[in-house]
Amino acid sequence: MDAAIDLTDRSKALDLANIRAQLIRLEDTITFHLIERVQFPLNKTIYVAGGVPIPGSELSLMDYLLREQERLQSRVRRYESPDEHPFFPNVLEKPILEPLEYPSILHANTVNVNASIKQRYVDEIVPNVCSSVRADRGASKENYGSSATCDVNLLQALSRRIHFGKFVAESKFQENPEKFVQLIKARDEKGIDEAITNLKVEQKVLERIKMKAQTYGSDPALAEYSNKVDADAVVNLYKNIIIPLTKVVEVEYLLDRLKGTQWE
Amino acid sequence: MDAAIDLTDRSKALDLANIRAQLIRLEDTITFHLIERVQFPLNKTIYVAGGVPIPGSELSLMDYLLREQERLQSRVRRYESPDEHPFFPNVLEKPILEPLEYPSILHANTVNVNASIKQRYVDEIVPNVCSSVRADRGASKENYGSSATCDVNLLQALSRRIHFGKFVAESKFQENPEKFVQLIKARDEKGIDEAITNLKVEQKVLERIKMKAQTYGSDPALAEYSNKVDADAVVNLYKNIIIPLTKVVEVEYLLDRLKGTQWE
Repeated sequence: MDAAIDLTDRSKALDLANIRAQLIRLEDTITFHLIERVQFPLNKTIYVAGGVPIPGSELSLMDYLLREQERLQSRVRRYESPDEHPFFPNVLEKPILEPLEYPSILHANTVNVNASIKQRYVDEIVPNVCSSVRADRGASKENYGSSATCDVNLLQALSRRIHFGKFVAESKFQENPEKFVQLIKARDEKGIDEAITNLKVEQKVLERIKMKAQTYGSDPALAEYSNKVDADAVVNLYKNIIIPLTKVVEVEYLLDRLKGTQWE
Repeated sequence: MDAAIDLTDRSKALDLANIRAQLIRLEDTITFHLIERVQFPLNKTIYVAGGVPIPGSELSLMDYLLREQERLQSRVRRYESPDEHPFFPNVLEKPILEPLEYPSILHANTVNVNASIKQRYVDEIVPNVCSSVRADRGASKENYGSSATCDVNLLQALSRRIHFGKFVAESKFQENPEKFVQLIKARDEKGIDEAITNLKVEQKVLERIKMKAQTYGSDPALAEYSNKVDADAVVNLYKNIIIPLTKVVEVEYLLDRLKGTQWE
């Protein structure tokens, strides 16, 4: 099954089956990165500005690594791709690679909820997934860099997963423009939220996530290496953060959907 | 089970049970990264110097990203850790974080087989794991950056796994110094190789790897997302590359083990 969606191909990029495949694949990526992260203690210090002093910078260690990673990856055109959103847009550089041609699949690509993602990552996600597994250990300085490196991978995967809501929203809009035009014109955010919600699908996602966290988090050959990640914490991450923030992206995207169109 | 070994603790770092836990945990990491990489086609161009032109550099795209990643991570003291070995030692910068104190666990830490790892990665590993899964697709320019980013993660994990052989070798040396001193003095590389080899354990590792590749490479809830990575290709990677290169590290490490000691 092909999971790496081709965003240079307009017809595929808005096909709900392709979007679903990509979202399912990103569940694996997020689970893998969580399993990597929980090897290390919470290490709260790396999230505090000045907690780990960085010469010439007021950033936390995680923010420093995230910013520098984005600076580097912008050179190989990561942020040219419509499904990528920087946390530090100010440091992006001109890509050294030739630009790719992405068709304008989305109506607009301005919504960016990375600030919320990062805030909730630091305040809720890391404490929740790290606490139960690593309650036995205090902070470990020798893992600061490794922990922050995992954090960068996780934040990038979460951001991609959540902002994929734009493609979901565009696809749903195109399936039933009349309905959405009406809701959008009425600025009926609650109505839009209801129109994009499918509780049955959400329930299935949560069940799948639990199985993934249990399966990928357990060594299939060695019982003593099981439950590497707390499956319930991963389910709660989806239930309380990923799914709701994805809907925020969808609603915000749709609220702007009529600008410059025949429906405005 | 605690898998993140603490190399600042001398007694733990040479405990074979701890080393084993770390090696087993690295199997997961490598498998996860392989599953991420095979989402994308082989994209051979990213491994060729000048294949993707980089202004002011003769490096391949992968080498460029790897070098810049090492430059960045050296600042957060990645290469201070005795289990980390750079591919581009010339670009390392002085860490911006305070140094950690690692006790001198290893007798010497000079062996570096990264050149072999990279060569075999490009020539064998990527073609083998990508070919069967992605034979349906040609190169895709829009995945060049993503593919190379996965490559960097994989090379770093492989390098760590393989160079862990130094700790294995030191631990085995300390278990039976008389035997090894004799072999080392005789420069009996074949004898050393035999003394560090446990075919039964190797067979178990290969069986476990196959299960991991199958389990982690299959969505537990959706049959259509199974066999994301070719389990036999992963087994062959261990059998033909990881295990043999680990032994090269062990033998090279042991050949230098007597320098400056009472046995020299």
